[in-house]
Amino acid sequence: MRGAVLHAPGDIRVEELDDPKIIEPTDAIIRLSATCVCGSDLWPYRGIAPVDGPSPMGHEYVGIVQEVGSQVATIAPGEFVIGSFFASDNTCELCQAGYQSACLHREPIGAIGAQAELLRVPLADGTLVATPDIPPDDLVPSLLAASDVLGTGWFGAVAAEAGPHKAVAVVGDGAVGLLAVLAASQLGAERIIAMSRHAPRQLLAREFGATDIVEERGDDGVAKIKELTGGLGAHSVIEAVGTQESMLQAIGSTRPGGHVGYVGVAHGVELPGTELFYSHVHLHGGPAPVRRFLPQLIDLIWNRQVDPGKVFDLSLPLEQAAEGYQAMDERRAIKTLLRP
Amino acid sequence: MRGAVLHAPGDIRVEELDDPKIIEPTDAIIRLSATCVCGSDLWPYRGIAPVDGPSPMGHEYVGIVQEVGSQVATIAPGEFVIGSFFASDNTCELCQAGYQSACLHREPIGAIGAQAELLRVPLADGTLVATPDIPPDDLVPSLLAASDVLGTGWFGAVAAEAGPHKAVAVVGDGAVGLLAVLAASQLGAERIIAMSRHAPRQLLAREFGATDIVEERGDDGVAKIKELTGGLGAHSVIEAVGTQESMLQAIGSTRPGGHVGYVGVAHGVELPGTELFYSHVHLHGGPAPVRRFLPQLIDLIWNRQVDPGKVFDLSLPLEQAAEGYQAMDERRAIKTLLRP
Repeated sequence: MRGAVLHAPGDIRVEELDDPKIIEPTDAIIRLSATCVCGSDLWPYRGIAPVDGPSPMGHEYVGIVQEVGSQVATIAPGEFVIGSFFASDNTCELCQAGYQSACLHREPIGAIGAQAELLRVPLADGTLVATPDIPPDDLVPSLLAASDVLGTGWFGAVAAEAGPHKAVAVVGDGAVGLLAVLAASQLGAERIIAMSRHAPRQLLAREFGATDIVEERGDDGVAKIKELTGGLGAHSVIEAVGTQESMLQAIGSTRPGGHVGYVGVAHGVELPGTELFYSHVHLHGGPAPVRRFLPQLIDLIWNRQVDPGKVFDLSLPLEQAAEGYQAMDERRAIKTLLRP
Repeated sequence: MRGAVLHAPGDIRVEELDDPKIIEPTDAIIRLSATCVCGSDLWPYRGIAPVDGPSPMGHEYVGIVQEVGSQVATIAPGEFVIGSFFASDNTCELCQAGYQSACLHREPIGAIGAQAELLRVPLADGTLVATPDIPPDDLVPSLLAASDVLGTGWFGAVAAEAGPHKAVAVVGDGAVGLLAVLAASQLGAERIIAMSRHAPRQLLAREFGATDIVEERGDDGVAKIKELTGGLGAHSVIEAVGTQESMLQAIGSTRPGGHVGYVGVAHGVELPGTELFYSHVHLHGGPAPVRRFLPQLIDLIWNRQVDPGKVFDLSLPLEQAAEGYQAMDERRAIKTLLRP
């Protein structure tokens, strides 16, 4: 099969790889209908996270089940399925508490590589959720978004306790930040402030439910959020970047007693304890337990109540993965869909 | 009147000071029945927090209202009252949300000085809560505990979402940590693990409801908590120290999806963002909004359902404040009550 491999920072190649095989009786093999490039794939692509020899890439996937292991009971060949970036058994105590991304038996899909024609998914019964039927083509991008960026933005909004009567701010205008806007809107937030200085992203944020746009960053951004929220700060702030500046911007934009949901993968962040102590905010985040939300998100998409697939503003054949990475790296594209 | 003044690290003197007077029409003057020394008073006493010239000390107080300003409506002379370390109006949006310690008009009592015979309390209507009657002498220590350490431990337990079916761990065996044990017990926690290596404090922790004692600290302490909680960590961890080691011990002892309530005043703490991100914990804390809990805590004490006054294992006349500080500094006393 064909699959994308990162050889060194900036060097993505689509190559001939061995077809995946069932290894554990709980595995499934999926023929991918679509996959994509994640903001977090850009960390190693940019050399900020280390590249340790040629690495298969990608962890977002939807497709048709081709084969299942002997112990797979709830997923059958021919079904269209969606899973998240951590395979999880969905039965352990942590999964049952809603933290499937901390599953005691979790396996990162990123280490297997979903930017490919075929994918082996461990713990198929726990990981995969089937759609009611084979979806029409136009729903595929939105279902693919549920695999990570929608689920991650949704978790950010839930962690930030976005909801009715709340003023919500979103730091970060990548796919996750934009879909956190959509999530906050679906969760009933009264006011949603998107922090973005890019016109096309501002437009999409408004389409997803943003009521206000703030272009300022850092201390100026914090001041602007306070100005828009009666001097107090937002009730709920979603952090979807992962840098020191964005985390401090998120904490500073939150009122005492408010909630920060942080889902940007933290890079080089050190939180000052005294500032955090006196901020009185709630802080929660981490790798999103997307599996918790998948049934609900699939429903919303299936019934065409949301259209998260709009974050894919570039669609390329898998063979052109390199261009897909480059376009996102240069911020020419919000998110690249790859067709195997 | 007589009052305690910190002149330099280690140099506490009880001196003749001007009697306080009504300054704002919302003030009250209280004749203190009891006051005490707080763990946080030890930071400047030890020279870890700066001492900026002679400073009146103390922020914990109960006593009889002597005089009220012209705009005080709900508190009357002759009543026995309790307040917290931040005066608060209890009407602003943040107070109404339960964060009276972040009140838009808050004033720190510590800057006024409660280790004295008389105390001016700003925003008396919002700050003070009267008991049903003048309390018998034996209830005074417990009511004084409600002014800070009980309310702070209680907030820590609430922030950590201690409750039924939860395993709770408490980092820190000072008065706040011990009363966090009591709070967790009152909130219905199933298992309460006190981390302490001091026999008298272990005993008090057990009396307050601890089911287990862990003597190990740091990584060994984390390992022990995991061992006691099926390898997962506690659901709820209360941090009541405020150092880098204690914060990391608290975070490390919490299961993914669990809650850390941190109430130790942070000193020199820097939280590593990546570790926090992957820990999947909820983090909440800060200066406790004790006022939120005062009516409930006074009820529990008045009905003799709890006896938090047991944390006072040394009681001295105000004139001997210096000995009270020294005994706590040397950990000969858990907490010193001072009788003006």
